[in-house]
Amino acid sequence: MSPHPAKIVMQRCDELARITDEPGRLTRTFASPAMRRANELVGGWMRRAGMKTRTDAIGNLIGHYAGQKPGAKILLLGSHLDTVRQAGKFDGPLGVVLAIACVEQWHRNRLRLPFAVEVAGFADEEGVRYQTACLGSKVLAGCFDARDLQRKDADGVLMADAIKRFGGNPAKLKSAQLNPKKLLGCVEVHIEQGPVLEQKNLAVGVVTAIAGQSRFKISFTGRAGHAGTVPMDLRQDALCAAAEFILAVEKFARKTNGLVATVGLIRVERGASNVIPGAATLTLDVRHQKDSVRRTGCAALQIIARRIAGARKTKVAWQPVQQTASVPCSPRLSGRLKRAVKKYQRAVAALTSGAGHDAAVMARITPAAMLFVRCRGGVSHHPDESVSGPDVRVAFEVMNDFLRQLAGDYA
Amino acid sequence: MSPHPAKIVMQRCDELARITDEPGRLTRTFASPAMRRANELVGGWMRRAGMKTRTDAIGNLIGHYAGQKPGAKILLLGSHLDTVRQAGKFDGPLGVVLAIACVEQWHRNRLRLPFAVEVAGFADEEGVRYQTACLGSKVLAGCFDARDLQRKDADGVLMADAIKRFGGNPAKLKSAQLNPKKLLGCVEVHIEQGPVLEQKNLAVGVVTAIAGQSRFKISFTGRAGHAGTVPMDLRQDALCAAAEFILAVEKFARKTNGLVATVGLIRVERGASNVIPGAATLTLDVRHQKDSVRRTGCAALQIIARRIAGARKTKVAWQPVQQTASVPCSPRLSGRLKRAVKKYQRAVAALTSGAGHDAAVMARITPAAMLFVRCRGGVSHHPDESVSGPDVRVAFEVMNDFLRQLAGDYA
Repeated sequence: MSPHPAKIVMQRCDELARITDEPGRLTRTFASPAMRRANELVGGWMRRAGMKTRTDAIGNLIGHYAGQKPGAKILLLGSHLDTVRQAGKFDGPLGVVLAIACVEQWHRNRLRLPFAVEVAGFADEEGVRYQTACLGSKVLAGCFDARDLQRKDADGVLMADAIKRFGGNPAKLKSAQLNPKKLLGCVEVHIEQGPVLEQKNLAVGVVTAIAGQSRFKISFTGRAGHAGTVPMDLRQDALCAAAEFILAVEKFARKTNGLVATVGLIRVERGASNVIPGAATLTLDVRHQKDSVRRTGCAALQIIARRIAGARKTKVAWQPVQQTASVPCSPRLSGRLKRAVKKYQRAVAALTSGAGHDAAVMARITPAAMLFVRCRGGVSHHPDESVSGPDVRVAFEVMNDFLRQLAGDYA
Repeated sequence: MSPHPAKIVMQRCDELARITDEPGRLTRTFASPAMRRANELVGGWMRRAGMKTRTDAIGNLIGHYAGQKPGAKILLLGSHLDTVRQAGKFDGPLGVVLAIACVEQWHRNRLRLPFAVEVAGFADEEGVRYQTACLGSKVLAGCFDARDLQRKDADGVLMADAIKRFGGNPAKLKSAQLNPKKLLGCVEVHIEQGPVLEQKNLAVGVVTAIAGQSRFKISFTGRAGHAGTVPMDLRQDALCAAAEFILAVEKFARKTNGLVATVGLIRVERGASNVIPGAATLTLDVRHQKDSVRRTGCAALQIIARRIAGARKTKVAWQPVQQTASVPCSPRLSGRLKRAVKKYQRAVAALTSGAGHDAAVMARITPAAMLFVRCRGGVSHHPDESVSGPDVRVAFEVMNDFLRQLAGDYA
């Protein structure tokens, strides 16, 4: 008896984790030698699963499993094959190898679906090399910004040159776009990267939306002074103002259902241990699945910042850095996923994804859905990233059930 | 009619401010070419004021104004001639040139005091070049640590070599110590470096003690996580814990009379704008004129830090960096100063010095006192440092009255 496909998925994640640009740790960035070897390895698995493979102009690896009839529409599965620096094994690769395992099952049973299945191994989602994320899915969705080709990596290599060296073609990125009319939808399996499923003791969950995001740079300016000579009541301490704001952000987010808000960095400008902080700059990251809640929240936080600054005779400068709208998942596809989940675990968890994903990019041109798999401690982007074999088995069964349901829909 | 001595003091501060190691800004560090030129200039002023000058083994410039009888005891006046980088004109030099102006007045009137007066231009108080402060007064007080001779500056120059090049003698630092039995005391005039006199609208104030100081490095450790995927109620945000502590420090110091406590620096370890802070490290500086209040305060703050960390499921590490005991000023000399101040302004302000000073070092071997002069906005260590002519005039009159009182005491 051959091992359960979920076991093979785990073995393949291990195998892929050994393909790295940096010895001793897993780092696999866009258009790198490790990415080439990863594409070769994964391409072999795709072909063994009955797929025809191709690598497109940006370096996405795509396996095609033909449908029952020529010219059938396409269901896109998959995730990304690149990683962050010093990564874990599952963020990205799990979604690719699990999709391949599903197709392999149909292939082994000599069954075709009433639609074609394509499995994408996206060339870049993390954006480590060029500080711009989801290059692979942006090309497939036709929203790649050609100006990004002029970006340079840390070694000064132009993105355009990196694509050429990898075997891609920067001039053909436009034509690498998938035809929306030919797509049924896109479904991505991914680790949760958060602790909610673990908290609920569930193997998988269905994503309802990818949260919108607002990022700000916020500076409080008070008055620097000698830490020994300025009495407490005469201070205009910028760091105290910032600290009050940090706690206000936390309090506000806690009372706003589903909102997450994070001050990730803070710096005292021209500071020293014996100097009262004259200026403090911090970052703020706010996310929610409803754009209106996020926007209202950010406006409220700005008012709070002004009130804190005013009460302390300090000033605050509020600078928007980035805004991304939320992306709702397809209710139809998510409904099919939920129905499948119900069969394999005691409850269906509906989650918001706080992180961006390739599926959110693909949602621009086709209905998209996501299945999250529990990861230990909610840890991701770290070698400790861990998912369990039994959970992957549930994810595998859910995805197969999903495919069976969809086959019924399109029969 | 010749200009008032206070006017000459102001002119001389201007003139000294042009003697710098860095063109375009005032930076005059220990044993530097600028210090040599400053000693030459100030030495000339001393001699014009009837003093014999010498430069000791560390580079302190000392002017001696003989008393009525040979072998009379010595009253030491003065302050430091070195500066911070990009300094103001008054921190240090004011106390030297004002003391010279006082002596000059007695000299012009052909009067001698029943004690000798020595004016010191200390060679180093700020500690910019070798990161160890008060080298000049430490030599005179006999508490110079010879191990410091092996320190290197930013260019790799040993302190011992810097002293030799300057014309000093590192082997004779011990014998450069002043004989405590020959000293009457030490009185230093210095800018306040704080806003209290300005707040009280007073030109000068008398220092009752130089505050003791405790410095700590404090780290909060929580759990890093994805800013988008970890719900607020599952976070262990180290920066939020640190922010709560910063506000608790402020609150505690505000309610503890005379205590100042400052978090001057903070850093999120391995942070990013989209990562929940897993660790945050900050500095804490606590000062009070009573060591018992400072010690009790630090212990209370440590308990507060533990309580905050515990309530947030984070940890706190509390590392002492430095402890300095408070130095009380001589009640007798301070009493004389207060009596003089009463004659020249409407009220006597008794201040604690939150900053360290040469007089605090000299207090190890002789009664010491300090007179603070109001500075605009409490600003020091900055080109904007400013004192007014009328305030310097008050300081001059106070010091002369002080000398007259002391002359009466020792007549």
